[in-house]
Amino acid sequence: MPLQPSMKLISVDDHLIEHPNVWTDRLPQKYLDQGPRIVDEPSSTGGAPIQVWYYDGKRFPAIGLNAVAGKKPEEFGVEPVRYADMIPGCYDPKARIVDMDLDGVYGAVNFPSFPRFAGGLFTKESGDFELALACVQAYNDFLIDEWCAVAPHRFIPVIILPLWDTDRCVEEIRRCAAKGAKGITFPENTVPLELPSIYTDHWDTVFSVAEETNMPLCMHFGSSGSPPVTAPEAPYAVTISLYGTNSMSATAHLLFSPVFHRHPNLKVALSEGGVGWVPYLLERIDGTWERHRWYQNVVKDIRPSDLFRKHIYGCFIDDVAGLKARYDIGIPNMTWECDYPHSDSYWPHSRRYAEKAFADIPDSEVHQIVELNARKLFNFYDEPAV
Amino acid sequence: MPLQPSMKLISVDDHLIEHPNVWTDRLPQKYLDQGPRIVDEPSSTGGAPIQVWYYDGKRFPAIGLNAVAGKKPEEFGVEPVRYADMIPGCYDPKARIVDMDLDGVYGAVNFPSFPRFAGGLFTKESGDFELALACVQAYNDFLIDEWCAVAPHRFIPVIILPLWDTDRCVEEIRRCAAKGAKGITFPENTVPLELPSIYTDHWDTVFSVAEETNMPLCMHFGSSGSPPVTAPEAPYAVTISLYGTNSMSATAHLLFSPVFHRHPNLKVALSEGGVGWVPYLLERIDGTWERHRWYQNVVKDIRPSDLFRKHIYGCFIDDVAGLKARYDIGIPNMTWECDYPHSDSYWPHSRRYAEKAFADIPDSEVHQIVELNARKLFNFYDEPAV
Repeated sequence: MPLQPSMKLISVDDHLIEHPNVWTDRLPQKYLDQGPRIVDEPSSTGGAPIQVWYYDGKRFPAIGLNAVAGKKPEEFGVEPVRYADMIPGCYDPKARIVDMDLDGVYGAVNFPSFPRFAGGLFTKESGDFELALACVQAYNDFLIDEWCAVAPHRFIPVIILPLWDTDRCVEEIRRCAAKGAKGITFPENTVPLELPSIYTDHWDTVFSVAEETNMPLCMHFGSSGSPPVTAPEAPYAVTISLYGTNSMSATAHLLFSPVFHRHPNLKVALSEGGVGWVPYLLERIDGTWERHRWYQNVVKDIRPSDLFRKHIYGCFIDDVAGLKARYDIGIPNMTWECDYPHSDSYWPHSRRYAEKAFADIPDSEVHQIVELNARKLFNFYDEPAV
Repeated sequence: MPLQPSMKLISVDDHLIEHPNVWTDRLPQKYLDQGPRIVDEPSSTGGAPIQVWYYDGKRFPAIGLNAVAGKKPEEFGVEPVRYADMIPGCYDPKARIVDMDLDGVYGAVNFPSFPRFAGGLFTKESGDFELALACVQAYNDFLIDEWCAVAPHRFIPVIILPLWDTDRCVEEIRRCAAKGAKGITFPENTVPLELPSIYTDHWDTVFSVAEETNMPLCMHFGSSGSPPVTAPEAPYAVTISLYGTNSMSATAHLLFSPVFHRHPNLKVALSEGGVGWVPYLLERIDGTWERHRWYQNVVKDIRPSDLFRKHIYGCFIDDVAGLKARYDIGIPNMTWECDYPHSDSYWPHSRRYAEKAFADIPDSEVHQIVELNARKLFNFYDEPAV
């Protein structure tokens, strides 16, 4: 029984759906019309009205894309939904705690939905960047003061950044660190978002303040806004099955970059990307480094896989290939995820599936993977009761 | 000693550099000026003249990109070269056989260089498609009648196609099959080449004639013309280390497509993509299929990993992760490659490295991987001496 009752499952990759008033509750009066708000619209198929976000004059359907917790795969779909079509745990933190208890999950990082996984929406879709900054701050205040405040020892606050302005990023990281933030969402690649790459010195102040405040960068697959689409006619299943290649790309992109050389205390969590590919990719990256570093702008005396072991964390739900290869990945680099309320999640049976997945793994390794590594990564510990 | 002396190494992924007269020797007089020809040009750095291809009024530098066999990694580079900078085995089939003997390699598939891995150059860079067709036929005639004819039991002819016209593809496959071709290069994805995807019925006649003539499609990484580039400033090492993700993408693209359902005898060889990622990706693809097939245009009663085992072959040089996970990949789906004369190759020590890589693998598995699977895939057997 390798997953002992005393081991607390900490999911480093869950998702929250912002309730309709996240921004209207917080933005100054002058921004209430432009800021994100939910509008009821007639359904084009004649059913119940649908609910869509409006922001800065643009319409964003699919409020709860992939928020399928509680449904059977036979009922899955990708169409926009109404709040009434989701279980309340999607958007209500108290209901979420009940759902986590039901699932046997103790703690969780939640990624944003409407702002996109790394808050890229406010960078890409804004005309007014004063408004956009207010929206970023409002989301982070909602996350820390409203969502995580419901159960501060169970929710790990991971904030979004005003990515278009690194000075504002630095200020927002400091502001949120002071009120308890534990991590920072960051795009797996900034280039598709039309932002400078991590090979420039553009992000140095941001990465330095992340180091200072001891907060990892959480790079969720898809956060670059460049989903792996192979053909216009290919079903979405192709993209879903290939999303992990975005995390592979982020890994090579990071390991050959100056980032970890300039920021020796920076940590990166690759979110939802799986881990089964890690041994193959590190072997390939090291082999490339062995042969091609001489004539390229690559650090010549530090092996990329050593950087991986020191700086990068992967996560998985039930990656059989990854667990078999765990010693080649590195137990300290592996964390667990639930993915509530998305379609990869086993909710409300996550703990039962984890027991099955970890059946042949020694206790101490399981404990590191499901709980201890995440606590260390996010500096997230139960404080003594007052 | 698991790699027994009796086992013949067959490389399913080597490369030839076309000598300067491949097309001038064969094209009709009227095309001699437009067809591919080598021009000596002064070097911009003041050194010896460089040699570049001209085709249909366009200039193509880098005649021997990555043709580094015989050099040490410290001497590698990506600059264009002269024929005199390469060892003759790059472009001379008799010298190649000598180099293969030196390397302990018995048989080899060679991919084209100037026409690109799947002949995409003639599709993408031609103004005159009558000329382009003559160039495709000339390459295939060179390959079969000049290159492979030097040692027909050691060279496996894998032809290129006039991809812009499926009727011409069918004719060319039949024409070349009749003179001994054993395989067909095909892009890992046709969409980036601005050709219809394999989700349409566009390629059905081509795939049917490949089945009829018992020739696998060889999909070399990079043959889609969409290299994995993460940032303008990222060193080429990032792209090199991520090329295998193109093969992963090709795998998901194929397994969710109608191709293997419509063409139950079609085989696909993924060339140079490694195999260490296969267990992770098949698990992910099957999981996606389990959960998402109900509402998507995906075949519902055949598991994608079963299709993989029946139809797809991977290859590798010394993929430690892949060899450890070989039972999850499937021994019958694994083949070996040398990659002469490119930078991944261990030439002239390939056999020695293979001995090391296979040291802990049972003999019968090694034999399948290094020789027997490739013979079966390409229907390539030593014929009895007359």
